[in-house]
Amino acid sequence: MKAIRSVLEYFKGIGVDKVFGIPAGSVNAFFNELYEMPEITPIVTKHEGAAAYMAASYAKHTNQMSVCIGSSGPGGTNLVTGAANAMREHLPVLFLTGAVPINTMGLNASQELDATPIFQSVTKYSVTVTDAKDLLNEIVKATEIAISGVPGPVHVAMPIDIQMGDVGSSFIPVLSSRKEIIPDLGTIKRVAEEITNRETGYIFVGQGVRNSEEQLIELAEMLEWPIIVTPQAKGFIRNDHPLLAGVFGFAGNDGASTLINDGDGQTLLIVGSSLGETATSNYNVNMTKNRFTVQMDFDATVFNRKYQIDLPVLGEIQLSLGYLIEELKSLGLSRKKVKRIEKNEEVSTEEYSTKNVLLKLQEFVPSSTRYSIDIGEFMAYVIHHMKVIESNTFDINVHFGAMGSGIGYAIGSKLAEPERPAVVITGDGCFFMHGMEILTAKEYKLPILFVVMNNARLGMVYHGHALQYHRTHSSFEQEPINISAMAAVMNIPSFRVDKMEDLNQEVINNLMNVNGPAILEVALVDNNVPPMGDRVKFLSSFGK
Amino acid sequence: MKAIRSVLEYFKGIGVDKVFGIPAGSVNAFFNELYEMPEITPIVTKHEGAAAYMAASYAKHTNQMSVCIGSSGPGGTNLVTGAANAMREHLPVLFLTGAVPINTMGLNASQELDATPIFQSVTKYSVTVTDAKDLLNEIVKATEIAISGVPGPVHVAMPIDIQMGDVGSSFIPVLSSRKEIIPDLGTIKRVAEEITNRETGYIFVGQGVRNSEEQLIELAEMLEWPIIVTPQAKGFIRNDHPLLAGVFGFAGNDGASTLINDGDGQTLLIVGSSLGETATSNYNVNMTKNRFTVQMDFDATVFNRKYQIDLPVLGEIQLSLGYLIEELKSLGLSRKKVKRIEKNEEVSTEEYSTKNVLLKLQEFVPSSTRYSIDIGEFMAYVIHHMKVIESNTFDINVHFGAMGSGIGYAIGSKLAEPERPAVVITGDGCFFMHGMEILTAKEYKLPILFVVMNNARLGMVYHGHALQYHRTHSSFEQEPINISAMAAVMNIPSFRVDKMEDLNQEVINNLMNVNGPAILEVALVDNNVPPMGDRVKFLSSFGK
Repeated sequence: MKAIRSVLEYFKGIGVDKVFGIPAGSVNAFFNELYEMPEITPIVTKHEGAAAYMAASYAKHTNQMSVCIGSSGPGGTNLVTGAANAMREHLPVLFLTGAVPINTMGLNASQELDATPIFQSVTKYSVTVTDAKDLLNEIVKATEIAISGVPGPVHVAMPIDIQMGDVGSSFIPVLSSRKEIIPDLGTIKRVAEEITNRETGYIFVGQGVRNSEEQLIELAEMLEWPIIVTPQAKGFIRNDHPLLAGVFGFAGNDGASTLINDGDGQTLLIVGSSLGETATSNYNVNMTKNRFTVQMDFDATVFNRKYQIDLPVLGEIQLSLGYLIEELKSLGLSRKKVKRIEKNEEVSTEEYSTKNVLLKLQEFVPSSTRYSIDIGEFMAYVIHHMKVIESNTFDINVHFGAMGSGIGYAIGSKLAEPERPAVVITGDGCFFMHGMEILTAKEYKLPILFVVMNNARLGMVYHGHALQYHRTHSSFEQEPINISAMAAVMNIPSFRVDKMEDLNQEVINNLMNVNGPAILEVALVDNNVPPMGDRVKFLSSFGK
Repeated sequence: MKAIRSVLEYFKGIGVDKVFGIPAGSVNAFFNELYEMPEITPIVTKHEGAAAYMAASYAKHTNQMSVCIGSSGPGGTNLVTGAANAMREHLPVLFLTGAVPINTMGLNASQELDATPIFQSVTKYSVTVTDAKDLLNEIVKATEIAISGVPGPVHVAMPIDIQMGDVGSSFIPVLSSRKEIIPDLGTIKRVAEEITNRETGYIFVGQGVRNSEEQLIELAEMLEWPIIVTPQAKGFIRNDHPLLAGVFGFAGNDGASTLINDGDGQTLLIVGSSLGETATSNYNVNMTKNRFTVQMDFDATVFNRKYQIDLPVLGEIQLSLGYLIEELKSLGLSRKKVKRIEKNEEVSTEEYSTKNVLLKLQEFVPSSTRYSIDIGEFMAYVIHHMKVIESNTFDINVHFGAMGSGIGYAIGSKLAEPERPAVVITGDGCFFMHGMEILTAKEYKLPILFVVMNNARLGMVYHGHALQYHRTHSSFEQEPINISAMAAVMNIPSFRVDKMEDLNQEVINNLMNVNGPAILEVALVDNNVPPMGDRVKFLSSFGK
């Protein structure tokens, strides 16, 4: 058996059913094996960078490791941004790269590049295999590293001759399951005591709550504490939950800000947040001031970074929450019918603005829709204004913040959950960076609505400079391009919105009920100041 | 003075007049300074990867260091492919990245990433500046490293607070000039002796001959030795030179191959080639067999890699050639009226094929046109068939081979030499990866003809698999997109070729005499086997 064949047998066995990337000479052997492996579908993209975002999203929404592949040289380096993104997002993605044959290394073979050191700092493991007999073992090792502890990306470079090397009849291991990080029961007991000793507090929820939303809600209703979410965690707690106070941090809501800055909550129970810049409104000291702090996370490195934590709880969020609920029950607490926190209900007005377009859009798309949010001015509006109607319906990436990543995420999400309606909210800047992946969506018949906020400028940069320096450079603005007309010539259904009244149920239905992607172009230059003042304050605070 | 201001003053002083990249929060301070620096134009691109190719090409064709910039995080990592490319091509590009403020490092600030280790192995120098007082010094140091010895890319990460730090009144150094690598005269004398002792030989020319073409020709005419060029050096020696035997290696010509494999030349004088895979037709042993070998290069690491070299000559190619010519003159040799080597003249036929389209195209575009060649099946045809009418008119990148790089190279080339007509030959695969940069060309009013060979498949992969495995995977083919229609909706002049007769002088004139880019779409599925058999033989030779 060829070494590469054993790798594909292993993939098949552990449930890898997609491979994202672009074929090339140095991975010919890999792609050739796919002919005889109908269980694995190659998703051939337009740019490897987008393939990496798709793989990240696919891993996220299948809760499995995903696989992404690029050639030796440029195909491999085109994956680096996606590796850094997956590292930041704790997503298990196996990045495979081709490499020149061992005996030609250092001899300037076509596309020669030693990818291992480049991936080193943006993966949990990066290796070049130098013996065909080791290939499968290294893939298995990398897989186990990817899914264990704090999950994350790994990289294996496969020289051409290694892929093609004969390894006899190979034993194909099965997937060893992730070893769960069990929280310490004594610590949980102390948390329960400290919490019940204090009457008031807030639950501060980061994206680590994913897959534990139910427990979180149950805990909140037992404690009757307000829930504050980070920008990246928007989407996990439904807007109609009475205890949701809103988003704190970048583009956050007044209600959450008032609680953190002026509220008398005595406890801050942090669940799955590393307390980064955007989550804490630039490391706002009021977060933990005069509050007893508990932080639950599966990543020990997030404790006591910027904020001193009174009680760190290391463990899977789901287990920690579950144990804590049991402990509180044993102390006599139970789930209550909670009172609704007062908060402003978002209402749209007639003004043709980003805010109103986004709120209006939500009236017409199914409530189960997942929104993949790209990077731009509109992101601040999404975080601030859009409603969470069902849980786990927003992918927001304000952390790594890669332009165009939302497009890849939408494709990965749709492949992972074909039944769930998918909308990507993107801008013209992101579209011209990675928007040609709409052709990938078309080729694989993926119904995804591309909402393109087209203001013919890099809106976040434009508004950022306007706020910080009170002037903007002409190079931030571009000649407007009619993106819906572009879609039309690509045989992709599209509609262009030029005013509020253009947006209606029929338009959305026509775009969403097709067997492939569609574009809703929102031609709108919004000169309102986006709700991103905190970020600008942060950027302006240096060198003074 | 802000630290970043001193950097821009330095740039202005050393003649940096363009900065390629995309603005973002972490480089706001840099872009803000550009308002008051009209001498430096930001070329804002659609993807930082393309900006890096533009910068590489701009450095190549201005013979100066160029500057490229990206944000902290994704903007920075999007430059990595371009850094690896510039490293391989020995082009001095300064990559600047933003970084989060020093005191927030490790605290998950927005777009935080330590870029320095990622760039380490694909640059000559990579550093994060941690004190504003060091910023200018590090930029100066990086610049000097970039242009010295074997030139190449360098990387400096500039945290936000470092850019904005006050450094008082800064002394702005001027550019120290590159220290030339002087060849040893004794070695040159020995080369002259060995050459004159042997009557016959071949001059094997790599891309290191750039800027020394005149000397090369003079030397060849003194020795009356055939000139063989590598694929990357195609374009330096005019087709009508009587001594040109053609291209050897990937997609090479029979004439050159016959000389290397069966010719009785006693000497091989290698000028500016590292003797890599594509240059040597997969390290063909006949290259140096029974031949006395001389290798001239400014990179000491290329000697005695795969081939034992009898006489390595370390030094600038231009100096080595000049000294050798003087030495030969002193031995009584002089330039002769040389006899034309017999070789087949390329002629086009009526068949609608890649070969014929490329040859026909050359009849209609000006002879001074520079062709930037992207990566794909068409590249093999370009190397094999196209004519070199004037010297230094082809940019071919079969070494690093990054899809879409030709598009960036064309833009960089046009900015460097505005008077020279520019044509990029690209394919649909490359176009959908980086083709949106045509909008960058439009915004900066750059007349560049985009010749898009549209076969709705990854042609090199398709033919590669067909040759190697006698089957091709359906994922290598895509739904055809009418690219000229896409151009039309972007207000870019375009024309679609569907048959040989569609291509004529008027069509080309209409596309080239405009104040911006234009697209010539060649809709053609060419099922001929491209002249790339050697590459496939190489890929197939493993695991047997």
